[in-house]
Amino acid sequence: MQLIGMLDSPYVRRVAVALIAAGVPFEHKPISLFRHIDQFSAINPLLKAPTLVTDDGTVLIDSTLILDYCVATVPAMRALTPANPQDLPRALRLAGVALAVMEKAVQQHYERALRPADKRHQPWVDRIAGQLHQGLAALDRELPPAGFIAGPLGLADIAAACALGFVTGTIGDLVDVAPYPNLAAFAARAEALPAFRAAPAVDGVTAALAL
Amino acid sequence: MQLIGMLDSPYVRRVAVALIAAGVPFEHKPISLFRHIDQFSAINPLLKAPTLVTDDGTVLIDSTLILDYCVATVPAMRALTPANPQDLPRALRLAGVALAVMEKAVQQHYERALRPADKRHQPWVDRIAGQLHQGLAALDRELPPAGFIAGPLGLADIAAACALGFVTGTIGDLVDVAPYPNLAAFAARAEALPAFRAAPAVDGVTAALAL
Repeated sequence: MQLIGMLDSPYVRRVAVALIAAGVPFEHKPISLFRHIDQFSAINPLLKAPTLVTDDGTVLIDSTLILDYCVATVPAMRALTPANPQDLPRALRLAGVALAVMEKAVQQHYERALRPADKRHQPWVDRIAGQLHQGLAALDRELPPAGFIAGPLGLADIAAACALGFVTGTIGDLVDVAPYPNLAAFAARAEALPAFRAAPAVDGVTAALAL
Repeated sequence: MQLIGMLDSPYVRRVAVALIAAGVPFEHKPISLFRHIDQFSAINPLLKAPTLVTDDGTVLIDSTLILDYCVATVPAMRALTPANPQDLPRALRLAGVALAVMEKAVQQHYERALRPADKRHQPWVDRIAGQLHQGLAALDRELPPAGFIAGPLGLADIAAACALGFVTGTIGDLVDVAPYPNLAAFAARAEALPAFRAAPAVDGVTAALAL
């Protein structure tokens, strides 16, 4: 299968890291939603990253649904879901908080990157910044001080680390993450793993095929 | 469990309709993200709808993860996923397209509803309007001309109908849906079902408990 999109998107990166961590082979095409519109449009005219093209040619959209597809169809992916069903609600909660952090961080990035200064709207920025900090605080409070959420690395851990990676990498000058040391230590543990290092949060291609 | 959020959100509505369609009991609290901030914040300070509070008090965020939780923990919900695994990729594709339509429609709504006129940015509006129409066109082309995607009503059908319901109900003056008659007929079939009628796409409470 093919994963389409740049790793500077936390949504693309969470899928890439998950596939690499589970040892699932895939081809990564780092095509930009902004700089390579014609090329992206030929694969998916909705211009949404990540896009996953399955081996039978189905074009999937939405990182969570893409991961649902992978878990349902690739047995190795199940190692990234809680082995104990009792851990599922907490894992899904923290994945949801991580997705909210990604969304609010992307909105803050877009407000600055895609609008001239006179089209930015401070009440909107204040609202999403408040939500972003609530999300970071929840992750900082609820993530484990050692190890990962449900034992081995899982999808929720990957989402949480990718969320913080996007915040610090893309809007780090706007958001002070000093109040969230437990989240930072958690993300550092994740970022040290081979699967994260193979899919760095920058423009570029995964090192997946070289693993 | 409790579902928190207004049914004018297509994300809240897709969860409500799914729970009702599967016969899962829940309490609906139609609390607004904008008009009842203090009340919402007391339940979920991230201010994200839908929020699902599970019976053990876990506060879940993100409509897709909430539905993943329900499918994993409530046996009746499995009737809303494809019985034949071969139907899964197409169902997930169409659910993803429906989510993209919701996202672009919400972005278009927010651009108008949450910003004064001089803070709106036409290149952004043009971009998301283009994506919205690509999504509507894909649904129109790919949804079945009779019945539902994988036989009985499922999560992807619910997402597609809720997406069109939001477009016509909230930004219907901005978006011409006349080019999408197959999608309109599909959504009309869904909207005629009791589960959809019990959770209308307007401010208000589900009729779930009266079913």
